[in-house]
Amino acid sequence: MLETATDFLYEQLAAELGQAIERGALRPGERLPSVRKLAADRACSVATVIQSYVVLENAGLIEVRPKSGHFVRRRSEGVAEPRAPRKSCQPAKVCGSVSDGVARLHQALRDPSIVPLGSAYVDASALPIVALNRLLAQIAREASTAGARYDVAPGLPTLRHQLARRAVSWGLVIHEDEFVTTVGATEAVLLGLRAVAKAGDAIAVESPTYFGVLQAIDSLGMKAVEIPAHPRTGMDLDALEDALRSGPVRAIVTTANVSNPLGAIMPDEAKERLVRIAARHDLPILEDDVYGDLVFDGTRPRPLRAFDKDGRVLLVGSVSKTLAPGYRVGWIAPGRWQEQVERLKFSQTLACATLPQMAVAEFLSSGGYDRHLRRLRNLLCGQLERYRQGIAAAFPEGTRVSAPRGGFVLWVELPAGVDALELQERALTRGVAVAPGPIFSARTRFQNFVRISCGLPWAGPAESAVKILGQIAAELVERRGRLRGAA
Amino acid sequence: MLETATDFLYEQLAAELGQAIERGALRPGERLPSVRKLAADRACSVATVIQSYVVLENAGLIEVRPKSGHFVRRRSEGVAEPRAPRKSCQPAKVCGSVSDGVARLHQALRDPSIVPLGSAYVDASALPIVALNRLLAQIAREASTAGARYDVAPGLPTLRHQLARRAVSWGLVIHEDEFVTTVGATEAVLLGLRAVAKAGDAIAVESPTYFGVLQAIDSLGMKAVEIPAHPRTGMDLDALEDALRSGPVRAIVTTANVSNPLGAIMPDEAKERLVRIAARHDLPILEDDVYGDLVFDGTRPRPLRAFDKDGRVLLVGSVSKTLAPGYRVGWIAPGRWQEQVERLKFSQTLACATLPQMAVAEFLSSGGYDRHLRRLRNLLCGQLERYRQGIAAAFPEGTRVSAPRGGFVLWVELPAGVDALELQERALTRGVAVAPGPIFSARTRFQNFVRISCGLPWAGPAESAVKILGQIAAELVERRGRLRGAA
Repeated sequence: MLETATDFLYEQLAAELGQAIERGALRPGERLPSVRKLAADRACSVATVIQSYVVLENAGLIEVRPKSGHFVRRRSEGVAEPRAPRKSCQPAKVCGSVSDGVARLHQALRDPSIVPLGSAYVDASALPIVALNRLLAQIAREASTAGARYDVAPGLPTLRHQLARRAVSWGLVIHEDEFVTTVGATEAVLLGLRAVAKAGDAIAVESPTYFGVLQAIDSLGMKAVEIPAHPRTGMDLDALEDALRSGPVRAIVTTANVSNPLGAIMPDEAKERLVRIAARHDLPILEDDVYGDLVFDGTRPRPLRAFDKDGRVLLVGSVSKTLAPGYRVGWIAPGRWQEQVERLKFSQTLACATLPQMAVAEFLSSGGYDRHLRRLRNLLCGQLERYRQGIAAAFPEGTRVSAPRGGFVLWVELPAGVDALELQERALTRGVAVAPGPIFSARTRFQNFVRISCGLPWAGPAESAVKILGQIAAELVERRGRLRGAA
Repeated sequence: MLETATDFLYEQLAAELGQAIERGALRPGERLPSVRKLAADRACSVATVIQSYVVLENAGLIEVRPKSGHFVRRRSEGVAEPRAPRKSCQPAKVCGSVSDGVARLHQALRDPSIVPLGSAYVDASALPIVALNRLLAQIAREASTAGARYDVAPGLPTLRHQLARRAVSWGLVIHEDEFVTTVGATEAVLLGLRAVAKAGDAIAVESPTYFGVLQAIDSLGMKAVEIPAHPRTGMDLDALEDALRSGPVRAIVTTANVSNPLGAIMPDEAKERLVRIAARHDLPILEDDVYGDLVFDGTRPRPLRAFDKDGRVLLVGSVSKTLAPGYRVGWIAPGRWQEQVERLKFSQTLACATLPQMAVAEFLSSGGYDRHLRRLRNLLCGQLERYRQGIAAAFPEGTRVSAPRGGFVLWVELPAGVDALELQERALTRGVAVAPGPIFSARTRFQNFVRISCGLPWAGPAESAVKILGQIAAELVERRGRLRGAA
């Protein structure tokens, strides 16, 4: 762990215990050491231990049993994981319904009366947005002529310098001149794809994969080759090798650290193997690492880029999932495609907005970002678990839910025959947005899956919204039953 | 003229006199009415007239002759206009050297020791950037959670509302839902091109044309068909019709109001004819109108879109030339391609930065923008004229310079045989950047042309920089003479 020193001892203690729970050193149902004993063992005050237990309780990791002590909370273990697809698909154009489904999702996001469980962003209450906006205000007053010039690619030097510094804690050495700042990770992915492939080319992606990647592939006239992915370990590398043998593939797009929608984290050995496979076929890997800082057990998993010896991994990141989606601050470290990416950026957006970049650079240079990340990870870990329990309680029997170790989305498999697109439509009429499974596939697989974002606090509209989704799913199961009965 | 009321009488008077000069009602060398007479005629105070004369003097439009009075300044009339190319070119891929030349230009822009006469932006001293940044600061403090969500396409409603309001003064009725906000006009042009054409398609452009358009065409695998353009009236429509008859063209990209680099303003009859031609061939027109607010005589020329009856003109604009390049606030009104553009935006950049959009919306909603535009136009008009005179004095005989009625760039034709790329290289070693002519053509026409941006105040580094450019041009003319003598 390459993090800056923790400000408060209780936070450090809570983080350690949280890791112990995440890694299974402390199991669900087990009793934690008594407050007095832990204080003695760790040579700290009783108050410190109590504070750290409060943090863990708030994160949903432990619970207090009156007169008995503190216990590791039981996970909603009855819930099975969703299943992975069995086979890869042949290269295919992205089905038009993906774009339709995404448009519905974005449209819903613009309606403040709809609970946005379909879109992956963290609620403002969990972000340091007020502090960041204050920083922006201060910079706008002090650097009074900032914004009067184009910060043409590769983008603001101070931001790139901070990224180079942070790369060290990702296990990487990337010089600031090897970054290009972008309008969120979205622009970075498009730039990367445009740099390494052209219309007609086949791109290997995880199945299921983030719909934004499919839209990018589609908009560039490329094809997707869907490689099955496991909810815990990510892309099936045997299947990938088969696919590479059976036809030409131009590039691989993947999220090795907390994939979307699965939440899978690829083990280091698999990462190493994936990079080896890419090298053998001389393929670029476009690695979307936007969730890499949100792994619950506190160790920052290394990106694929850490295993890359010849600049073939184009690393993409942003602060949209951790700081401020609306700042549109992202980046790409394009490896050997540096010059191509810079030139594409000239005619794609020319430059990023200066002041938001300055504010983010300033925030990253303070210790505030690491501190915030620790709190955010704890919070999301607990929140995700509450959503899982809520889904388990509200959804019909046979529903399966992912149990990711990071990020804030859940991948939910509904009983066979339940149509996720119909669920999306019905839910919208009742004020709830959800992302239907078929938009996570070029060939509209995952008809009976949905992705639920857990970025909103559980208490309040989100809890009711999950119940509504569960009711609709139950109605659809029942109707299916009636239809079968009638047949 | 649909402008808000002028705050001060002297400004209104200066604007009127300025228009009279621009339109030739008052000719170079003519004496203006005496201060007392004008005050009596216009029923205003002597102080008001004096103030308005000071404004005109500062704008370089008039001069004081001691004991004689105020006179319209003589334009650098001895300088001829650059010549237009005679013929259209067959559809061609954009030559790789365009991208190289542009990269050199952007690289130079990042070096603060180089005088950036190659890049088209107005100096901070002429922009209301301090006021805009203060507004941003205030918004960032007050709207404390702004930036915590994605403002997905079509973008911030308050900004789109202001654009719809302003469209009225452009002579247009465009509803706010018919705008999509973009990362400057750069993103808008790319989105527009992607919406209407695909790889391999031929796109008609002015010759010379803005290199950013050529880069966009190139990056999308499209071809450019260069149609000759006249320095005052823009694209040659007879040549366009010939080109459309001789081969398939998918779309037209043009700047009808103050083209770049020529500064041409297409007369209304020509605009109407161009739209008719496009309708006859069922072609979309991508209209880049970023300079439309910077026409000196104060009338805001109508965009092509005003002559369009069936949604075939995709109108592009931004505040980069008038308010703040680094805010990256632009837009497109994509006409019948609204849905395609919105969807392309999802995977190109998803959303624009929220806070800069909010600040610009707020600025546009105040009367401050019109007031600023009036001042900026006056200033640029004078500045451009000083650059013209400076170029006429410093450059070798036979140099021709455009005399645009708006914007802030000059198109300079050097004596035949002078290599603009060599001039660019030599100038860079002496701390001056200039845009070489060949990057304004897909086939590297305009070998002996340069574009000089007049966005910096004339006094100071710009004046010396123009002298340096003139010296180098003279050296190149001399060497050419020696080589000829030797041959």
